Amino acid sequence: MVQARGVSVTSVDAMVEGVHFRLQAGWATPAEVGHRAMAGALSDLAAMGADPGEAYLVLGLPSGFGEERALELARAAAALARQSATVIAGGDVVRAPVLIVSVTAVGWADRAEELVGRDGARPGDLVGVTGRLGGAGGGLALMEGRATSTPANRALLERARRPRPRLAEGHALAAAGVHAMIDLSDGIATDAAHIARASGVELRVEVSSLPLEPGLAELCAELGEDPWRLAAGAGEDYELCFCAPPDARARVEEAVRALGEVDVTWIGEVAEGQPGALLVERGQQVRLEGFEHRW
Amino acid sequence: MVQARGVSVTSVDAMVEGVHFRLQAGWATPAEVGHRAMAGALSDLAAMGADPGEAYLVLGLPSGFGEERALELARAAAALARQSATVIAGGDVVRAPVLIVSVTAVGWADRAEELVGRDGARPGDLVGVTGRLGGAGGGLALMEGRATSTPANRALLERARRPRPRLAEGHALAAAGVHAMIDLSDGIATDAAHIARASGVELRVEVSSLPLEPGLAELCAELGEDPWRLAAGAGEDYELCFCAPPDARARVEEAVRALGEVDVTWIGEVAEGQPGALLVERGQQVRLEGFEHRW
Repeated sequence: MVQARGVSVTSVDAMVEGVHFRLQAGWATPAEVGHRAMAGALSDLAAMGADPGEAYLVLGLPSGFGEERALELARAAAALARQSATVIAGGDVVRAPVLIVSVTAVGWADRAEELVGRDGARPGDLVGVTGRLGGAGGGLALMEGRATSTPANRALLERARRPRPRLAEGHALAAAGVHAMIDLSDGIATDAAHIARASGVELRVEVSSLPLEPGLAELCAELGEDPWRLAAGAGEDYELCFCAPPDARARVEEAVRALGEVDVTWIGEVAEGQPGALLVERGQQVRLEGFEHRW
Repeated sequence: MVQARGVSVTSVDAMVEGVHFRLQAGWATPAEVGHRAMAGALSDLAAMGADPGEAYLVLGLPSGFGEERALELARAAAALARQSATVIAGGDVVRAPVLIVSVTAVGWADRAEELVGRDGARPGDLVGVTGRLGGAGGGLALMEGRATSTPANRALLERARRPRPRLAEGHALAAAGVHAMIDLSDGIATDAAHIARASGVELRVEVSSLPLEPGLAELCAELGEDPWRLAAGAGEDYELCFCAPPDARARVEEAVRALGEVDVTWIGEVAEGQPGALLVERGQQVRLEGFEHRW
């Protein structure tokens, strides 16, 4: 039983072995799976500007998975929850043919007006993101052995394995007056389009402005790929993308910087036009393969 | 976003193909799976006496499952939610090697004191149940082909396939002053022990008093099994078991009868003693195979 506040928001996020992660050596440990599942659910709350509340953990355990690994997974989920001011308040454990982790996260606000949706972007707004992008996509390339692990790109693996939900930043951005917000679970190309369609506007994202995770450019040189494609197309960075009126620019930057974790980068603007996201490189439209089909 | 009331309760319930149900012909249809998953989650809220609120549906769909069957499943879950005054307010759909359905159900009350836990049973309380027991266990025997389908036992199959969460009854029982309550998801033997241990008391259940689902006695004759064993040991009947002070007896019976769905049957009493459930048959302790190991 939970003492309520004015309004609640609830997010559910499921991860399935073989679909969202692999447990083989070099891929994810049970702890990393628990962390990522919790991060994904909490990140949805962050994007609404909600205060964290409770989480409920469903584990589907294959036979032979073992109590020790199940505890390792649950402890890592609980550790991230604790760091995020979230209480694990219940759950369910069932048998399953592969490892399944589903997290329900509940956040709270005193009044509906304190929360931010995806549908409030207006022409003239600036488009911003927190932190750096492409870390999870670069880390995946390393895990898949498509690129060489070096000290310089270790941060990419860390980002892929232990993403940070931006709860405090989301709350600060909501308070600073952003009009719309989303967390980058699918990649900025897809997620910007979610805001655009919900708001009935066009989001123009300048790909040369995307803040790249350190080590990503070097890794992409080895892959023979444009870094912005990985930064825009790969999911699970769990940074926040938001639209803010130009006069809130300084307030937004300061609100996020004051938390001491990440900075804001302005990557585009909102225009009237056909609802959707447009990727541009110095004013010319560019295409991200597969992007048009993902929405 | 949900407008909150004073306190919330949240239940999560996951079902996995091959573990909790099978999809082969004669077993469960996708609609029945959706119904049962929703029923299981809502039943937990019923046992607390909470008012129904929202549900969140996670589907893990195997490749080739098909949109049509997924919709059939979701529609059946939504239909039971609607009948239960519950709004499906979100969810997640992922790929999975087998069909997985996880439901998070949220219920509400104005004040914590309106809710009932498992820990309030007191020596001298009467133990009661709603409705009739053994339907789900009998239905399972029919689905497994261990007994013959007849017109007389059709109700058993219906109970197994489309259990009814007792939300209105749970709310009425809480208002009538029951001290402790649980829903029968594991069977009365196991679930009575949950109340007993949480309350630090002994629950004595008279197995000859268990209200049997019509058709169960005949089916058990064919199986060569005592009907009470199936009624006490099989799960998923989703009736409510509760402990009430003797002076609330008439009020409890009337509160449930007034809803027009089921009656209350008194099946035992609460005593001081080693915390646990004791099955007795006309005063003599009887043993249910496997029961001692299930808690």
